[in-house]
Amino acid sequence: MTDHLDAGTSRDKDLIAVHNSMLDGLGKLSDYFGFGKVVGQLYGAILLSDHPLSLDDMVERLDISKASASMNIRTLENMGMVRQVWVRGSSGRRKFYEAETDFWQIITNILNAREMRDVDRALSIMEDNLKRLNESMTSMSEDDRQLAQLYVDRIAQIQALFRFAQLMITAILARVAETDLQDISHIDIG
Amino acid sequence: MTDHLDAGTSRDKDLIAVHNSMLDGLGKLSDYFGFGKVVGQLYGAILLSDHPLSLDDMVERLDISKASASMNIRTLENMGMVRQVWVRGSSGRRKFYEAETDFWQIITNILNAREMRDVDRALSIMEDNLKRLNESMTSMSEDDRQLAQLYVDRIAQIQALFRFAQLMITAILARVAETDLQDISHIDIG
Repeated sequence: MTDHLDAGTSRDKDLIAVHNSMLDGLGKLSDYFGFGKVVGQLYGAILLSDHPLSLDDMVERLDISKASASMNIRTLENMGMVRQVWVRGSSGRRKFYEAETDFWQIITNILNAREMRDVDRALSIMEDNLKRLNESMTSMSEDDRQLAQLYVDRIAQIQALFRFAQLMITAILARVAETDLQDISHIDIG
Repeated sequence: MTDHLDAGTSRDKDLIAVHNSMLDGLGKLSDYFGFGKVVGQLYGAILLSDHPLSLDDMVERLDISKASASMNIRTLENMGMVRQVWVRGSSGRRKFYEAETDFWQIITNILNAREMRDVDRALSIMEDNLKRLNESMTSMSEDDRQLAQLYVDRIAQIQALFRFAQLMITAILARVAETDLQDISHIDIG
């Protein structure tokens, strides 16, 4: 990481320290969650910029290759964490990015598009399989019926996990329209 | 995937169909979440077995290499989804695995060991940075102060996200001791 936020400008040392600390912290987190550290650092650099950044800006600020900037920015775009913006007066060939800071929006983008559909599909597969077992168990041999009972029990256990995930996602989505993320003070599971 | 659950035994066609449907569904889910399909299939095979499975059993059931079985079982072990068990009468060199089916335990293992510590650390980095900015802002140049204010606003937004994650994790952990996962009927976010 370079010491200057913008080439050719010199900034207060606390600003630089905070900037680098945030990029370092976000880089470690994203690395830990399996996205690699550049994803977190890039998001931090874009979040803490008062203007949209081009890929060249990112290359310079993070001391990474253009290929790495381009690949990692795509990950952030797919998660809805950054968006492309058009910058007046710039050449049409340069892409600029700014941060999505509405985290409710980010969470619900991810949940809506992806996890909810998967959880629903998983639950319906389990439901179908339980039904199939319950219908055919009575005509099975004793050995098979014992195994079928084990299947029923185990599938019911894993189904409870997915129902919990479904409740959690539903609870989050239900609050999105009404609440500011900063106003949430408690979560009750009952 | 082979058609038989155990070599040399022939099982009811519904049992085989349910077995394969569950392994296929879990494989797709784990692939989708970035773990690769073998992780989900392996967990399914171990979950739906009435006895602990050896690596050789897994190789045979899933038609995978021993290296793949060994690598993917380690992922499941690290997540607390399976555990090694000792099987009486078997050679000491063969490792056997059974499924962890207490999903509350799995969730809290993961949350306790990992996410909570990371979220706490991220929150304290943000707190420190906000404090540093607030202390030094007054002595900054006008330009720097404007950027410092943007930092304060953006860091506060991302802090709200991590506070929400902290609340969520705390709410889940608070219920673990008291509740059965299957008994949870509602989640309130307020």
